[in-house]
Amino acid sequence: MILTHESQLTDAVLADNAGTADKRLREIVASFIRHAHAFLRETRPTEEEFHAGLQFIAAVGRRTSERHNEVVLASDVFGLSTLVGMLNNPLGSDHTAAALLGPFWRQNAPHAALGDNIARSNTPGPALFVRGTVRDTGGKPIPGATVDVWQASPVGLYENQDPEQDDYNLRGVFRADAEGKFHFRTVKPAGYPVPVDGPIGGLLHAQRRHPYRPAHLHFMISHPGYKTLITQVFPHDAEDLDRDVTFSVIAALVADCVRHEGDAPAPDVTGPWYSMAYDFALERGEQRFPAPPIR
Amino acid sequence: MILTHESQLTDAVLADNAGTADKRLREIVASFIRHAHAFLRETRPTEEEFHAGLQFIAAVGRRTSERHNEVVLASDVFGLSTLVGMLNNPLGSDHTAAALLGPFWRQNAPHAALGDNIARSNTPGPALFVRGTVRDTGGKPIPGATVDVWQASPVGLYENQDPEQDDYNLRGVFRADAEGKFHFRTVKPAGYPVPVDGPIGGLLHAQRRHPYRPAHLHFMISHPGYKTLITQVFPHDAEDLDRDVTFSVIAALVADCVRHEGDAPAPDVTGPWYSMAYDFALERGEQRFPAPPIR
Repeated sequence: MILTHESQLTDAVLADNAGTADKRLREIVASFIRHAHAFLRETRPTEEEFHAGLQFIAAVGRRTSERHNEVVLASDVFGLSTLVGMLNNPLGSDHTAAALLGPFWRQNAPHAALGDNIARSNTPGPALFVRGTVRDTGGKPIPGATVDVWQASPVGLYENQDPEQDDYNLRGVFRADAEGKFHFRTVKPAGYPVPVDGPIGGLLHAQRRHPYRPAHLHFMISHPGYKTLITQVFPHDAEDLDRDVTFSVIAALVADCVRHEGDAPAPDVTGPWYSMAYDFALERGEQRFPAPPIR
Repeated sequence: MILTHESQLTDAVLADNAGTADKRLREIVASFIRHAHAFLRETRPTEEEFHAGLQFIAAVGRRTSERHNEVVLASDVFGLSTLVGMLNNPLGSDHTAAALLGPFWRQNAPHAALGDNIARSNTPGPALFVRGTVRDTGGKPIPGATVDVWQASPVGLYENQDPEQDDYNLRGVFRADAEGKFHFRTVKPAGYPVPVDGPIGGLLHAQRRHPYRPAHLHFMISHPGYKTLITQVFPHDAEDLDRDVTFSVIAALVADCVRHEGDAPAPDVTGPWYSMAYDFALERGEQRFPAPPIR
């Protein structure tokens, strides 16, 4: 199209997209074109500002590798990852809310027996006893459901980030009993910052945002015939619960974490310990597993 | 913010942006958040589609280096570069339209005398004689205005892309005469494809778009007291004039390119030759020069 006015430009770009063979790609790119043009018409960047924006995108891409996913981090801190997660997993009163898988899940974590401690002996921090039941949306237990749990240590690091921790520390795959119940022992997790050494760290600094995620336990609950539930459970006393840098905290995923002194359920526990109960409800559907994340 | 419904998420992200110290950054990022969320709510990508989109952005960033600017190419083929250019340089009947600088301008091109041939002897293609006048918005000539011209060869390559061409071939910096007039000799430029070996090439293929820019001459016209004019002039007979992959063709920048046989203005011209006239009108303003582009 030969332009005679700036107002024709968006239509010209859309017209050239109209020949896209794949209908879904055509629709997504058309929406992107409309929103990107509207964003620029609204903000009217100078050429210097626009150049700085393009350089920021390039820097995010260049920091993304097999080892570090800055582009997912960008998506997380703009709330885009959580938005896509919520659109694909609508909240509902009959099933547990989903939350982001995050970059630290590992396939093939060790199987454990109900009651086992997933914290190796060298892991510091107060003991936490977790229990719950896996049910369907009608409230019926799902016997033998698989409960895959992983978490950061009380210093805020996952074992695959931390040379001090044993391989697969703070990870375990449990099988619920005949009544859908599970329980295990661990240590109380701590919150941790997302990586701030790339362009997203610079953005967070400019936004005067802290880079912290509140403490949480990751869960992946699965059983044949049910949609696999990927979620996170947040102890109610976690710091920054109302300012998660990734916007993952849904009220229904916050669990009471009770502090106890004495009368611990294990003889080696000295000092204060914690207990937390959380029940999961799975929707009927296809049991699918995610691809291992790129960190 | 602890969420109880997906509809709260956009406001939660905006609230965390509200503390940004720099007012302009706050405003731009807020607009980005609103448009990015609206785009996702409109297209409702699956998690696989969203992941593919993030990977596309990462690939564009990774292909951007000192030597190759894929992120600018992305901006070009979505019409974003032209949009920002038009917003910053509004069209008007009293001054010449601006167009993109592009990645091939070089600082310090050789100065030439009026009438000089900027095509070295080994450059193939029919001769083109260009003339014009540089005026202000009131129609008064600007004596001594600087006319910096650069173009691709008739095989569609700039000299800094093409080992066959001499250094600075098809580039020249002229000084208009006392009546604001300039003229020079060159060869008729050809259109050329943008680079298609990166992710943007894949996108253009999926969109069934050709990757061509129509033939054009680049001009940068400057004089103290006037806003520097960066633009492109398109011969009316250029191929793909109505389908420029970068959306740069503005009707007022298309010039009649007249074909002649015989009676050439230079004795060494054999066969058909071309002439083209284009007058430029500069707005009053600050004479500023761009930073050299990253290719």
